[in-house]
Amino acid sequence: MVHTGDGKGKSTAAFGLAVRAWNQGWDVGVFQFVKSAKWRIGEQTVLERLGQLHAETGEGGPVEWHKMGAGWSWSRKEGSEADHATEAAEGWAEVKRRIGEERHDLYVLDEFTYPMEWGWVDVDDVVSTLRDRPGRQYVVVTGRRAHPALVEAADLVTEMTKVKHQMDRGQKGQRGIEW
Amino acid sequence: MVHTGDGKGKSTAAFGLAVRAWNQGWDVGVFQFVKSAKWRIGEQTVLERLGQLHAETGEGGPVEWHKMGAGWSWSRKEGSEADHATEAAEGWAEVKRRIGEERHDLYVLDEFTYPMEWGWVDVDDVVSTLRDRPGRQYVVVTGRRAHPALVEAADLVTEMTKVKHQMDRGQKGQRGIEW
Repeated sequence: MVHTGDGKGKSTAAFGLAVRAWNQGWDVGVFQFVKSAKWRIGEQTVLERLGQLHAETGEGGPVEWHKMGAGWSWSRKEGSEADHATEAAEGWAEVKRRIGEERHDLYVLDEFTYPMEWGWVDVDDVVSTLRDRPGRQYVVVTGRRAHPALVEAADLVTEMTKVKHQMDRGQKGQRGIEW
Repeated sequence: MVHTGDGKGKSTAAFGLAVRAWNQGWDVGVFQFVKSAKWRIGEQTVLERLGQLHAETGEGGPVEWHKMGAGWSWSRKEGSEADHATEAAEGWAEVKRRIGEERHDLYVLDEFTYPMEWGWVDVDDVVSTLRDRPGRQYVVVTGRRAHPALVEAADLVTEMTKVKHQMDRGQKGQRGIEW
């Protein structure tokens, strides 16, 4: 699945899918391919809380949330000065490994269109990995300007189009709505 | 806010907003203006569970989820044979009352474009009620073909456009993804 376009709701809808998947008992992995996405903290808090509920009570499914910035949580390189391109490539390599192992039921690759656009990950590798993934694994990719090859390979593509946004009129982002 | 268009993600993104609002400690009211929306049950389960968490631990905010079909939960008319139009009008009357009382911080009026389209609620009444709402209350309306007057009054309008959907190729909806 691909959520693209310049409008709001790409990540929010992917997050909604993740919560719905949790409710079905699915194993959810979220991978944020953006550095310090402050406004995604609310989503992270809630999904991790749901994952904790799963661990405590067996409700729903397990949740992992990984994000770029000072190294991915699975690598934990101390004082890493890795540049964004390297970090994004490492993130994709890990996602690819997990897809090969059928580690999760749903993967949210948030803002993953950008490392694809900037050449930080190989588009053909992404498309063939996703297209040939084993078993029953679902992947949702968010971000503007999804690569045509990704759109071509996807089963479901939604474009979120900005019709109107109050920030165009000079209002600031609002707590609870924007982040 | 209005989520409209023929694509996926209108309700899912509104649901994501509701979960984010919960995390901020907001009072969330969801009003489903569709009868027996089977595939929204997952969202309802999760949001109500979050509301229960709030009651138990003080985390997040309170949540109410109301839906049409055999009477709204606040009215509980036994054996009601009310037609959909009447029920939708009653739903809107209640939402309007609550907005007047500043009862919730976020209102999700799910699929509310349809009762507006079908003349079951008065468009001018909806627009003026939303435009003149007191205090700091947020409202998100979902559904296709949002009325131009609603779009005009809204601060943020996103159109979800279907670029591609596997159901067009004859696949059935998938548990966890479609509902």
